[in-house]
Amino acid sequence: MLLERVESTGLAHYSYIIGDGREAVVIDPRRDCGVYIELAMREGLRITTILETHRNEDYVVGSCALAARTGAMIWHADGQLDYKYGEPVEPGQEWRIGQLRLRALDTPGHTLGSVSYLLHDQDGVPWIVFTGDTLFAGDVGRVDLVDVTRTDEMADHLYDSIFGTLLPLGDEIIVCPGHGSGSVCGMAIAERAWTTIGLERRHNPRLQHTTRDDFVASVAHVHERPPYFRRMEALNLSGADVPASFPYARPMGPDEFENVSEQAIILDTRMELGYSAAHVPGAVSIWLGGLSRFVGWFVPYDQQIKLVNENEGSDATVRQLLRLGYDDVAGILSGGMLAWHNSGRISQSISTITVQRLCYLLDERANAWILDVRSDSELAGQGEIGGAYHIHLTQLVERMDEVPRDRPVMVFCGSGLRSMIAASLLQRQGWDDVTVVLGGLAGWSSITCPLR
Amino acid sequence: MLLERVESTGLAHYSYIIGDGREAVVIDPRRDCGVYIELAMREGLRITTILETHRNEDYVVGSCALAARTGAMIWHADGQLDYKYGEPVEPGQEWRIGQLRLRALDTPGHTLGSVSYLLHDQDGVPWIVFTGDTLFAGDVGRVDLVDVTRTDEMADHLYDSIFGTLLPLGDEIIVCPGHGSGSVCGMAIAERAWTTIGLERRHNPRLQHTTRDDFVASVAHVHERPPYFRRMEALNLSGADVPASFPYARPMGPDEFENVSEQAIILDTRMELGYSAAHVPGAVSIWLGGLSRFVGWFVPYDQQIKLVNENEGSDATVRQLLRLGYDDVAGILSGGMLAWHNSGRISQSISTITVQRLCYLLDERANAWILDVRSDSELAGQGEIGGAYHIHLTQLVERMDEVPRDRPVMVFCGSGLRSMIAASLLQRQGWDDVTVVLGGLAGWSSITCPLR
Amino acid sequence: MLLERVESTGLAHYSYIIGDGREAVVIDPRRDCGVYIELAMREGLRITTILETHRNEDYVVGSCALAARTGAMIWHADGQLDYKYGEPVEPGQEWRIGQLRLRALDTPGHTLGSVSYLLHDQDGVPWIVFTGDTLFAGDVGRVDLVDVTRTDEMADHLYDSIFGTLLPLGDEIIVCPGHGSGSVCGMAIAERAWTTIGLERRHNPRLQHTTRDDFVASVAHVHERPPYFRRMEALNLSGADVPASFPYARPMGPDEFENVSEQAIILDTRMELGYSAAHVPGAVSIWLGGLSRFVGWFVPYDQQIKLVNENEGSDATVRQLLRLGYDDVAGILSGGMLAWHNSGRISQSISTITVQRLCYLLDERANAWILDVRSDSELAGQGEIGGAYHIHLTQLVERMDEVPRDRPVMVFCGSGLRSMIAASLLQRQGWDDVTVVLGGLAGWSSITCPLR
Amino acid sequence: MLLERVESTGLAHYSYIIGDGREAVVIDPRRDCGVYIELAMREGLRITTILETHRNEDYVVGSCALAARTGAMIWHADGQLDYKYGEPVEPGQEWRIGQLRLRALDTPGHTLGSVSYLLHDQDGVPWIVFTGDTLFAGDVGRVDLVDVTRTDEMADHLYDSIFGTLLPLGDEIIVCPGHGSGSVCGMAIAERAWTTIGLERRHNPRLQHTTRDDFVASVAHVHERPPYFRRMEALNLSGADVPASFPYARPMGPDEFENVSEQAIILDTRMELGYSAAHVPGAVSIWLGGLSRFVGWFVPYDQQIKLVNENEGSDATVRQLLRLGYDDVAGILSGGMLAWHNSGRISQSISTITVQRLCYLLDERANAWILDVRSDSELAGQGEIGGAYHIHLTQLVERMDEVPRDRPVMVFCGSGLRSMIAASLLQRQGWDDVTVVLGGLAGWSSITCPLR
Repeated sequence: MLLERVESTGLAHYSYIIGDGREAVVIDPRRDCGVYIELAMREGLRITTILETHRNEDYVVGSCALAARTGAMIWHADGQLDYKYGEPVEPGQEWRIGQLRLRALDTPGHTLGSVSYLLHDQDGVPWIVFTGDTLFAGDVGRVDLVDVTRTDEMADHLYDSIFGTLLPLGDEIIVCPGHGSGSVCGMAIAERAWTTIGLERRHNPRLQHTTRDDFVASVAHVHERPPYFRRMEALNLSGADVPASFPYARPMGPDEFENVSEQAIILDTRMELGYSAAHVPGAVSIWLGGLSRFVGWFVPYDQQIKLVNENEGSDATVRQLLRLGYDDVAGILSGGMLAWHNSGRISQSISTITVQRLCYLLDERANAWILDVRSDSELAGQGEIGGAYHIHLTQLVERMDEVPRDRPVMVFCGSGLRSMIAASLLQRQGWDDVTVVLGGLAGWSSITCPLR
Repeated sequence: MLLERVESTGLAHYSYIIGDGREAVVIDPRRDCGVYIELAMREGLRITTILETHRNEDYVVGSCALAARTGAMIWHADGQLDYKYGEPVEPGQEWRIGQLRLRALDTPGHTLGSVSYLLHDQDGVPWIVFTGDTLFAGDVGRVDLVDVTRTDEMADHLYDSIFGTLLPLGDEIIVCPGHGSGSVCGMAIAERAWTTIGLERRHNPRLQHTTRDDFVASVAHVHERPPYFRRMEALNLSGADVPASFPYARPMGPDEFENVSEQAIILDTRMELGYSAAHVPGAVSIWLGGLSRFVGWFVPYDQQIKLVNENEGSDATVRQLLRLGYDDVAGILSGGMLAWHNSGRISQSISTITVQRLCYLLDERANAWILDVRSDSELAGQGEIGGAYHIHLTQLVERMDEVPRDRPVMVFCGSGLRSMIAASLLQRQGWDDVTVVLGGLAGWSSITCPLR
Repeated sequence: MLLERVESTGLAHYSYIIGDGREAVVIDPRRDCGVYIELAMREGLRITTILETHRNEDYVVGSCALAARTGAMIWHADGQLDYKYGEPVEPGQEWRIGQLRLRALDTPGHTLGSVSYLLHDQDGVPWIVFTGDTLFAGDVGRVDLVDVTRTDEMADHLYDSIFGTLLPLGDEIIVCPGHGSGSVCGMAIAERAWTTIGLERRHNPRLQHTTRDDFVASVAHVHERPPYFRRMEALNLSGADVPASFPYARPMGPDEFENVSEQAIILDTRMELGYSAAHVPGAVSIWLGGLSRFVGWFVPYDQQIKLVNENEGSDATVRQLLRLGYDDVAGILSGGMLAWHNSGRISQSISTITVQRLCYLLDERANAWILDVRSDSELAGQGEIGGAYHIHLTQLVERMDEVPRDRPVMVFCGSGLRSMIAASLLQRQGWDDVTVVLGGLAGWSSITCPLR
Repeated sequence: MLLERVESTGLAHYSYIIGDGREAVVIDPRRDCGVYIELAMREGLRITTILETHRNEDYVVGSCALAARTGAMIWHADGQLDYKYGEPVEPGQEWRIGQLRLRALDTPGHTLGSVSYLLHDQDGVPWIVFTGDTLFAGDVGRVDLVDVTRTDEMADHLYDSIFGTLLPLGDEIIVCPGHGSGSVCGMAIAERAWTTIGLERRHNPRLQHTTRDDFVASVAHVHERPPYFRRMEALNLSGADVPASFPYARPMGPDEFENVSEQAIILDTRMELGYSAAHVPGAVSIWLGGLSRFVGWFVPYDQQIKLVNENEGSDATVRQLLRLGYDDVAGILSGGMLAWHNSGRISQSISTITVQRLCYLLDERANAWILDVRSDSELAGQGEIGGAYHIHLTQLVERMDEVPRDRPVMVFCGSGLRSMIAASLLQRQGWDDVTVVLGGLAGWSSITCPLR
């Protein structure tokens, strides 16, 4: 028997491959789907079935790519939508994989047609439920993505799905959700990589609201919606192109990199410190670990991308972009910033400051304007910074006018990584006295200079 | 957070590495312990703690090897025994790994001092219990290993451990045992790679005996005890030697292979068909997939081993031997049987027969004597073969005299793999008309020639 | 600087990737071309140029596949032919790769338009010549492939190419040919993985014939031409399909394997001994190591292939087939012969005999008919076997009528591997008393029973 | 046949494994020697012989480590020295590896007892000569390491070895040296990864001095001698400890990292830009690519090392240190500088400047003092920078007093990497106005602001 979770880091996306006998099923595959084929081949299994839990909105699902290579049949939830591929799942529908059995459970709420899949083991014992974005470890799916005016209705569905369908499966059932901690699809997913119905029933903060009204009141909120979601939704109905097998960005020397596709956006995925010291003028900073989470906010789909990476020899960047539908990468700077400088080109930098220095400075330099780009929930949880102006990073582009151009701007986030994104966006628009606070709130909280 | 199960195939041994913050703990490590260090290094973690659930008897625990490389502290259960390394665990003792917490639960029964470890997540929620050989998916630990005359006493302890300590943890708790399906440590471990207290409470056949007397009656049996267990127990108290990092068997040409260490036992790990066609005279057949399970029955520790492998370039054989304390491998036949034959050497073969041919033959050749080497439980579960004589494979060496030398012997098992072991043992002792039934009972059951 | 030889085992095909600065060139790429992209990416290089030395006839060149993924430009030799892709190379044409320079040398003989490429190092020093199939270590290219009636003419061209163009480059120049030892493209390629003009000039047996007439007489011979060459030649002009990235054969259980595509040919790539003990009825034996060399003789392109492999989890078989244009693999037997027998199916076997037994038997069993399937050159080099009938393996299908059906047939080759191919072909056509001599001539020569 | 070059990047050290039949020989193995065993195992070969070309001085030879794991016999050159292991090689001595043959050639000059090994192929043809540090591509070995007062004598020996022994082998012989481009053992090794006697005879600049006197005058110079050479020499006579198999540095959080081993030197191997933006106070900068080349100059053996790496999950840093005998790594900063700042700690930075800004500044800020840390040969080859003060990086520690403390110091090298080493050394000693010129001379030469 094969049961493997395939995690796509960055997205915190969990997909699953389950095999028995000679067959295997994949749930919510990712687009660079070679990993499933390799796992199946190693075990002598054939991928016959692909199950989607819902019309995904935060990544390009790999069903079409995987079906093209394996001949597997695709079954999709949200059958009421205008799908261009696969067959819609019926509630109660069953699939056999060797001696295992999977059954579709109707669990709407996150989307209108969300489906969970209950896996029975070789003895017929109900064993694992794959809940997609309906139920996570420590959180539940968002209900504001279908229609911001229908969150109450969707929360109502979600209540029924969780309290009426999932919890009655029994405390002992293992829960395998579609995302782990760090996903944009759940606000507060716990770092409990494996969980159970009982653990969620007893400890998931949302499920402590046991009456329908309480629950609805607790979850029927509108959250941020990254602009790229619309594109993912459309691609996931029409079926995205099958990507060339080996994600590949063309290495280019400084000359070619500078001249090719002048409209392209330059994306610098190095860590914040290297970016701060020197970057190609105009480059947007998103460190590799935050790429999947933030690129959809700041990089439009109608522009080509030019990459500056820490490690040219890795395909991690291109894979992450591919999973979000960014297929048009014009090239990557070969030799990195060293080659750039060796060619005599100019670069830009962003000032940084440690929290200790900041502490002194706040007295000396009353003129400094502190920009806090953390989210509302971080502010609520970690405390505000006295005198700071708050614009959540994801809103910065729209609200940039609120940032003064004539004062030194000190940017603050949790650690300094997101601040560097913000600083790069400001610099591109002409702000020239922007400084990132290294360590951010984590550092600030570690020293004695108190939050004022 | 890091939570990984490391499975040693063959043994069906499960070890675990859990990390958070900057630290990691390994539970019941295996002897070729590089895998834990690589996982930890990749995540920027340091292995500080090694926990043993009990004095293992079916493999050489890797605690000393792992401690030698990492400086981690070893904590062992069964503290009443005469350990030469590490510190004994106290019931209730706790360890912190980043924000995680592990607590020792006293769960005797399999051994006198068996301990389970309850892991609490970052929010302090009881989450996973590592049960060692106390509780498996679908089975419980054996109670006959401490002393065959004290099985009732040990079963009594086990009842308390399971019904008094583990089940009360709650149905929702995830159970991570020390073995999976296929281990010699549980008779009937289920292929449920991840399980929960509730799944076991409701579906584990042993736990359906809910009264103490019923339970004790159900589990207080004496099972086979492979002879190598004694050696494992001794090594696991004294601390086995730290193995050289890269398991390595010297490749040897036919001449050297034949002449080196004439007392050595020749072990042929190829699949049964290749062995049947031709093997080095005197070689014992144990196919690679059954090596960990059977080598301890048939290969003594005071003999060197000479290997004939399917795939010379793989270290799988040497690793499996190392995990069972077989460190003295004299060499491997370079170029395999092809080189052997190219050097003009003689080889032996074992006849095979398909089940259809057997069906005809049983009429024609009334003289054939059928030897069934399946276990008692297989006989009970799958049915007996009319007219067959039953000696379980593991008893064949002692009971070989019961096999007639003057009649054609047809050997039968589940599929033909274990039959080939049996046939090789008979051939070595001079039986010369031995035939293996290909497909064994699985094949026999698939055709219409009925079990008589 | 990057200079790597990529060897495709089986074919003994050598391709090369050379990179400097930010660019790389690939010479004669193979069809599963991910390897070049990975090497280039790791070094921050971009593959801009693909060079073919000639219209290849023994494998599907990967130029189109590699160009599709990288955008590289393809330059082909044999420009007089009706190519459907790329641009023809002009003699003397040059390419710059960073500071390196490559120049095309006109070296006809193997084909009419064969080209060699002379690489100059960063200082402009002539350094390495890529000779394709014009000059090998210890041999020269065949001159009979263009037209068997024009071998003298082609040998004449080859004389000029080698003595007039290549040798004058200087003894110190390194030679990188298109094939190594074991290829079907050279009769006697030496195991000198790297060689030089001087080593060949002094030690290549063909080049000891220094006058034009001697040389032509020495090389203008007609050799065997595997039937698949015609297909390779056609594909290499028209441009083969770009293969899906991950070669993948569908695993199938015995039922499906038996029933799918009944016209398909069953190809068993296990070692000779496993095959001899039991194989799916009708399966053709070609051990994996001989697959590339022999499949083109015995497997037509208009039949699907069903595979029985030793190691299901490896893609080695499917890759080798892909490189020869066999894209239509219906499936692979999941679980191998064990699954086949467990399903109660019948299998066939081939008898084997050691050389010692044969030695005795030749007296006793005067009736045995010995079939020697070695090549003419092996017979010449190693000696004949008295009383044996000689049909080279590759001619066996056409000359099968010469093999008696009413006598026991003993098949002989160098070692027993090719004999098993022959035996499988005979068995498929109804011969039922066929025995393979294990060890073949190598074994026979090692014992005292003399060649008679 | 197996012939593989194993390159240790950083050191540009070439070792070789050659196998045939069932045996293999390794020439000048490195200390982390698993790579040879894996290669041999994959080919079914046994490493029986280890050959050293001379008492190495620039890395710890892995002979003892490899012998400990394989039982191979060690043969060392420089037999007149006081070796504690192995057997001395006699000139003319021969070894057989399968059908291959190796012969020792006496080639003193780099050391008194340097030996080259001439490999004959399976047909007995002289094929490849392994020249150790006697002859490189484009350069010859140094003659000043034995004794700076005996360079003429050693150059005289080298003349005989090259002109009397190696060149007469014939232009066609392939040369496999002990180092490639970038090594500290040759001043100007060419990027000609494979070379021949003829290529060197015709193009190696040193060998154009064909009379003894010219040659001696050309090579009998004293070059820099990194201080770590003495330690390597001693270790290579006595036999270094066998390293634990998996190089492993303990990850530590900021607290532990700061407090452990306060005497330890902090080594920051990130790229120059990340270091410039922020580093642990007092850390020495040596980017990973330059580690092997520079660590021996700046890190003494009697101090522990604490590491700050770009990529914690890689063992590349620890391996490079191990090869130079730095076995005492106290730990690595887990989470890198981000964790450091998140803990509220202070960091230091180094200013940087682009060449364009420098161009403007040179007018404005007449006060700036330019430090050029390139080598003499770079100055000679690339030109000097008007007004710059020259101290080669390796001499900076001794000559630091020459650098003014009261003026802004601008550090210049070829690209900015070595300048950052210099700047970090200055900063540690209290210089506080140090700026690194990004792009260095490469950048400077690319712009119009001319060298003055």
